[in-house]
Amino acid sequence: MEKKSCMILALDVSDREEALKIAEDVSEFVDAIKVGYPLILATGLGIIRELAEFAPIIADFKVADIPNTNRLICEQVFEAGAEAVIAQGFTGRDSLDACIEVASEYRKDVFVVSEMSHPGGAEFLQPVGEAITRMAAEAGAFGLVAPATRPERVKAIRKIIGEKLTIISPGVGAQGGKASDVIAAGADWVIVGRAIYKAESPREAARKIATEIEVEIKGEN
Amino acid sequence: MEKKSCMILALDVSDREEALKIAEDVSEFVDAIKVGYPLILATGLGIIRELAEFAPIIADFKVADIPNTNRLICEQVFEAGAEAVIAQGFTGRDSLDACIEVASEYRKDVFVVSEMSHPGGAEFLQPVGEAITRMAAEAGAFGLVAPATRPERVKAIRKIIGEKLTIISPGVGAQGGKASDVIAAGADWVIVGRAIYKAESPREAARKIATEIEVEIKGEN
Repeated sequence: MEKKSCMILALDVSDREEALKIAEDVSEFVDAIKVGYPLILATGLGIIRELAEFAPIIADFKVADIPNTNRLICEQVFEAGAEAVIAQGFTGRDSLDACIEVASEYRKDVFVVSEMSHPGGAEFLQPVGEAITRMAAEAGAFGLVAPATRPERVKAIRKIIGEKLTIISPGVGAQGGKASDVIAAGADWVIVGRAIYKAESPREAARKIATEIEVEIKGEN
Repeated sequence: MEKKSCMILALDVSDREEALKIAEDVSEFVDAIKVGYPLILATGLGIIRELAEFAPIIADFKVADIPNTNRLICEQVFEAGAEAVIAQGFTGRDSLDACIEVASEYRKDVFVVSEMSHPGGAEFLQPVGEAITRMAAEAGAFGLVAPATRPERVKAIRKIIGEKLTIISPGVGAQGGKASDVIAAGADWVIVGRAIYKAESPREAARKIATEIEVEIKGEN
């Protein structure tokens, strides 16, 4: 993924026309668009190729199955034109390897969830978050997904992986994370959803947030 | 789910016509058909309703996201006509609650993955398998998914949940699990895939396996 801005759009809508319209409107201000199962199940996998006209697509499928099923899912994701897939790491190294092998075949990328910021994320996932991060680095993942609501955790994850891997960070805006804090902590991209796609003008909202992030970052440097 | 046999079909094919043909052929011998993302991504969510003509459908989506996304996924699954969904428990109680709340609204069921039998399943998932099982029981899940390749684990899980919950158990046949062992250990249904859908006649294979299971179980009683 090419880095022109610090922002990825989480396109969490489920209507095809709305999704395409927003993608077109904001493409100038984001480096990628993250889509999840709610949109894909509602519209079909083909929407990835349509959206990819406007920005590289990250399929946030939280892939969490046995190696063979992960492989079949990732093959379809990359055949459909996605640039990257997001996988869970808690299903273990072989399941992750299956995703990364397929991504390599297509010259595409895998992001691994290191931690999740919802309350339940603290129960089973957080205690092994650093182990999953190390596993992701060893396995050759492209990057990690780490919560913007906990910049200290982003910092800890950056420390583990060094500069080799990328960190993308959801939870900015509606969920309370501040972009400059997260980027100062080591994230490469912040992921912004509702603050853009629920705005009256997603384009103006994306422009405004992108500018704010730039100003914030400069202010902190 | 009504219990007439001890068998669920894992319909791990990705072609629509083939899936429908096999479902029709074997419906007499199975109590449900389990479908996963490889089939759904290839054909669209609508195939669930088509398959449901032949047997109740379990959507094996290993749902593993934040509560709101889990909710959106499950709403689509049940709107599409599925009888049950399979969720990961690793993402915590609130994520699981979201699935169970939606299932309750539709009067449908949730199964939770307690353990997985691939090698990577031993790394992060197995150490918390019993905790996840207890959580699933407390949250009001309909049942657990536990590996047929490890009957001693099925037994341990049955001990934790008592008779209140159902256990479905994949890994019989091609992966080496023996149906009678798993059912003796406490599983309600075994899940059979390749041994049926890869057979020259899936119908004959399903009939034969169903009969063998019956004979085996009687032999052990």
